[in-house]
Amino acid sequence: MLAGNGVSFVKRIVVLGSTGSIGRQTLDIVRAFPDEFEVVGLAAGNNIELFLEQVKEFSPKHVCCINPPSGAFSGVEYTKMEDMVALDNVDQVMVALMGSVGLAPTLNALKAGKSVALSNKEPIVMAGGLIKEYESLYGGEVLPVDSEPSAIWQCLRGEDNEILRLLITASGGPFRTTPISEMDAVTPERALQHPTWKMGKKITIDSATLMNKAFEVIETHWLFSVPWDRIEVVVHPQSTIHSMVEFADGSVKAQMGPPDMRLPIQYALFYPKRLPNAMIPRLDTKKSHALTFDPLEPARYPCFDIALSAAQKGGTYPAVLSAADEVAVQAFLDSKIGFTDIAKVIDRVLSEHDSMPGATVDEFIEADRWATGRTAELTNGHRT
Amino acid sequence: MLAGNGVSFVKRIVVLGSTGSIGRQTLDIVRAFPDEFEVVGLAAGNNIELFLEQVKEFSPKHVCCINPPSGAFSGVEYTKMEDMVALDNVDQVMVALMGSVGLAPTLNALKAGKSVALSNKEPIVMAGGLIKEYESLYGGEVLPVDSEPSAIWQCLRGEDNEILRLLITASGGPFRTTPISEMDAVTPERALQHPTWKMGKKITIDSATLMNKAFEVIETHWLFSVPWDRIEVVVHPQSTIHSMVEFADGSVKAQMGPPDMRLPIQYALFYPKRLPNAMIPRLDTKKSHALTFDPLEPARYPCFDIALSAAQKGGTYPAVLSAADEVAVQAFLDSKIGFTDIAKVIDRVLSEHDSMPGATVDEFIEADRWATGRTAELTNGHRT
Repeated sequence: MLAGNGVSFVKRIVVLGSTGSIGRQTLDIVRAFPDEFEVVGLAAGNNIELFLEQVKEFSPKHVCCINPPSGAFSGVEYTKMEDMVALDNVDQVMVALMGSVGLAPTLNALKAGKSVALSNKEPIVMAGGLIKEYESLYGGEVLPVDSEPSAIWQCLRGEDNEILRLLITASGGPFRTTPISEMDAVTPERALQHPTWKMGKKITIDSATLMNKAFEVIETHWLFSVPWDRIEVVVHPQSTIHSMVEFADGSVKAQMGPPDMRLPIQYALFYPKRLPNAMIPRLDTKKSHALTFDPLEPARYPCFDIALSAAQKGGTYPAVLSAADEVAVQAFLDSKIGFTDIAKVIDRVLSEHDSMPGATVDEFIEADRWATGRTAELTNGHRT
Repeated sequence: MLAGNGVSFVKRIVVLGSTGSIGRQTLDIVRAFPDEFEVVGLAAGNNIELFLEQVKEFSPKHVCCINPPSGAFSGVEYTKMEDMVALDNVDQVMVALMGSVGLAPTLNALKAGKSVALSNKEPIVMAGGLIKEYESLYGGEVLPVDSEPSAIWQCLRGEDNEILRLLITASGGPFRTTPISEMDAVTPERALQHPTWKMGKKITIDSATLMNKAFEVIETHWLFSVPWDRIEVVVHPQSTIHSMVEFADGSVKAQMGPPDMRLPIQYALFYPKRLPNAMIPRLDTKKSHALTFDPLEPARYPCFDIALSAAQKGGTYPAVLSAADEVAVQAFLDSKIGFTDIAKVIDRVLSEHDSMPGATVDEFIEADRWATGRTAELTNGHRT
């Protein structure tokens, strides 16, 4: 009963956000298993140089990017993301975009009955209920890619969902032990130095504020249908245990490994198979080490409570949360506002919002648009 | 998808070794779920007082003990263990005996197609291949009860057995940090003070020598059909992670919880269901704590290598190992030999043994008898 192998068909995939951190690592997996995948489509943003290289290497039939250089894609179809994900010859879509732009292609892929590997948290944060509704209406499925929800997914494998608690681990980010009084003065450079994970800028700042952890709580609430009060965050600075599930009998299962996103990406791409991949680092059991656990300090991470409160209110509040965070984090990166202003701005935008029911895509997009504009006003050139 | 409950039939069980540590805790679980179990038979050794109480409380139809007081069991059938486990109205047998005496009833239960919850390690250590053969010939099944094999069993649940390594955790026992030069002078009193687990005397000494951990390696080798070189022991003094499995893709799953045997006992009794039980302590996530991991120091634990070498030689060597250990540990508890003599005596008895193929019960029993006698001679009144 040892490691098996041999996937019997080629998986035809679309990668949205192929030049970002998760997109590039997704293509690393494709590169490691050339016989297992056909890349049907690639979509990216502004990193045209890398995108052209990827198109050359993987020869997708369909491409999409912002401001395509004229003549660059001869012999390749330029296809909108929403259409690319729904093509008949697509088996799985990796949504590794940044922000609310991931919502429409996610919903369209589900509507076409596709398997969606969702790395991009914002769609499920802003419209988790709608995504689950599409999943059950149209037969598509959402698979987690992020390491914490993937850990929970792996721990639940083969279990009868007798869940007592989900225990999501948080590294605590770069300011876990910084005196709270010094948080005002935090610079983007310092906030971008995550202790354990190498990620994109937006998600790295979200990790420093713990907004990212709140997003994971929201994501797991929707993905695994677990009530809010059964999801707990535990600070675990080593990022070795990626998350845990406590079952009805008190037994706890944890999923562990060195912090490397290629493992959860590969798990989502090959599920339910586990294939050996030499590029994925292994847990070192030959050296002494310690794993530590601490309760969360709410005062250090005001974004966390703000986010969970918005998520629990429901309606279009989560969409406003997600959009306000996106703009506020960019404003912090652009040195328009301070680190502690991120929470204050988001809180203010949420307090000004009149929620809509949040039952349609249009309502979420309208809330996203309003919050984007309002947060931009509040952060434009002055501190709140 | 929350905690379910409601088992639909009464499980009819036999508990062998009901007055020992695991037997008593098994009856704790029966007591906690009175509607789920019928106790068909109980068997015990010399603790007659407690046994009489248990017989009164659980009203088994069949009993077995050493030196039964005359007239004590009126209205109850006195039945040999080998027969009790094979009765038509028995669904599951808990084998929680000490030493080689567990082999015959384990094999008989399997021959009758029963589910055997095996807490008693010696039968599978001495005759693992034969037990697996009986399992496949007669359709019975062996379920682990010990916390480490149970952890591995739980981690493998729902997985396709793409196993890279089993990582069995060891507390390291009470002498993990004792200078090796002082190990000669260790007293039974000190060796009986296990840092994390409350267990019977024999297994507590086996934990101090790490013989118990070698037995678990042997047990998991047989239970999960994993080659010797894929089973590794990691020293983890907190006994919170009960064991781990590393899968082909590098993902590691761990099963955790406070050290309490009632959880793995209950898991074996109710598998695949997980039922809430207030008596089982829960992992405390509200306080800071650390889990540490260290490589094994072979020089500190000579029994470990001796045991694995015997197990890998096969034949009747493992039966000799188990019997020699049983006698040597008792000799240490009786202050006939010193702590470090345990390994020396076992090594010597193994070196004197002429192995038989180990294909029949009789061969194992003969090897067990020879090793018991020879170890008694060597430990009788003088240090080796």
